[in-house]
Amino acid sequence: MSTKTWRLAPGSRIKLKDADAARTPGIGNKDEAEKRLEVNREKLGELQYRLWAEGRRSLLIVLQGTDTSGKDGVIRHVMTGMNPSGCRVTSFKKPSEEESDRDFLWRIHKAVPARGEVGVFNRSHYEDVLVARVQGLVPAAVWRARYDQINEFEELLVESGTTIIKCFLHISKAEQKERLLARLNDPAKNWKFNAGDIEERKRWPQYVKAYEDALARCGTATAPWHVIPSDRKWYRNWAVSELMVRALEAMAPRPPAGKLKASQFFIGD
Amino acid sequence: MSTKTWRLAPGSRIKLKDADAARTPGIGNKDEAEKRLEVNREKLGELQYRLWAEGRRSLLIVLQGTDTSGKDGVIRHVMTGMNPSGCRVTSFKKPSEEESDRDFLWRIHKAVPARGEVGVFNRSHYEDVLVARVQGLVPAAVWRARYDQINEFEELLVESGTTIIKCFLHISKAEQKERLLARLNDPAKNWKFNAGDIEERKRWPQYVKAYEDALARCGTATAPWHVIPSDRKWYRNWAVSELMVRALEAMAPRPPAGKLKASQFFIGD
Repeated sequence: MSTKTWRLAPGSRIKLKDADAARTPGIGNKDEAEKRLEVNREKLGELQYRLWAEGRRSLLIVLQGTDTSGKDGVIRHVMTGMNPSGCRVTSFKKPSEEESDRDFLWRIHKAVPARGEVGVFNRSHYEDVLVARVQGLVPAAVWRARYDQINEFEELLVESGTTIIKCFLHISKAEQKERLLARLNDPAKNWKFNAGDIEERKRWPQYVKAYEDALARCGTATAPWHVIPSDRKWYRNWAVSELMVRALEAMAPRPPAGKLKASQFFIGD
Repeated sequence: MSTKTWRLAPGSRIKLKDADAARTPGIGNKDEAEKRLEVNREKLGELQYRLWAEGRRSLLIVLQGTDTSGKDGVIRHVMTGMNPSGCRVTSFKKPSEEESDRDFLWRIHKAVPARGEVGVFNRSHYEDVLVARVQGLVPAAVWRARYDQINEFEELLVESGTTIIKCFLHISKAEQKERLLARLNDPAKNWKFNAGDIEERKRWPQYVKAYEDALARCGTATAPWHVIPSDRKWYRNWAVSELMVRALEAMAPRPPAGKLKASQFFIGD
């Protein structure tokens, strides 16, 4: 199966309402998905090690999606197994005063992965054309200018040796309801519940519109968007792991060839 | 077995020459160590999740040891399996100009784990009483004042909810020679070889002295030092995992009890 299944063709526009969030192309069932996720996790460990040893390029995973879409879940299930030495996760929350006193890409730029690293953004600069737009945090002229600014920023990163994988975790509104109820009803999940999520849910149509625009305007050839059907958690986890493995395999990182020999050195007792 | 095996009693002084770096108290052989490491890794995943959910306290692992002692190896073998979202590894290298223009704890303080996080220091503020002293990077009066400064800094962290586990990975000089040769002779390891390590090896006795002082002066009841026999990599890995599991079990983090009920909210369609 090609990862093009999830990839939004540059320049195209998706109608999220018509995109089934429960479909599972490329995989039959939960058991199979979990087995293949485990295989991918092993591969990621090895590929990450080679990326680190090579020390020349980096990989950046951008995770976006509405509340409860599974951004934390993906990190927990897919990124666990990577060496945390070379895996830097940044969760972008409401900007601090220091951050909002600067341009919206300032805090993002600070968090990009170094050469050899895998970076994971749990939310990202896309919030600045999503929540900022839907809640009217900035004038329309400001967020409208951001699509191009984002594309140019991402181009800089790619031209500097970073491969970017952008994933939109797509869940249906009905699935979100189930997940919010689960957080309320399951004592082990209750601490995750945030009453603000219910306020945001009221703006579902506005978020759909904002996501559709972000996906269309920033789904570039340089850094394409992937729409991951995420109503099934096991499918979502496997799909993101598959995108990462394929991207790293394509990068084919290689540790620098050794040119030193023991005879060149006197190590002593 | 108690973790006191490795713990340096506050106020005591160790002679590293007399401390066998190849001993393996508490465990019989490599197979057993690897099995018990795997069990500990599972436990760490669960304990870390609870620490994160609780969101009130943090754990900081400080890894020190001469070149090739296995700081990277511990991170790779022990910390892999933790969720990188809540595990922040910082590798302290030669200070940048921005860093050396400030007090030596400035860059360290910036890197301490947030509430809910596990922090790992690969090298640390102890380099400022080790390499700084042995290479004479600062006047003696400056590094001599640092032991107390370090103790006060660590006390601040502990009083603020951080549990600190300090590990000195103790290897013999003969074992270091083996490992340097392995890096030179094994093409897969050659990229790790650093000719500077051989220069540092010539100062072995000075480093031993500097380590003995650091362990003695900063082995406090608040943040004790642990001396991990590290000639056997499997023993070292298991020992560090054991220290972490015991510390987290003693902290016994608990997610906040849920007080919200589904009936309080109208979630809508």
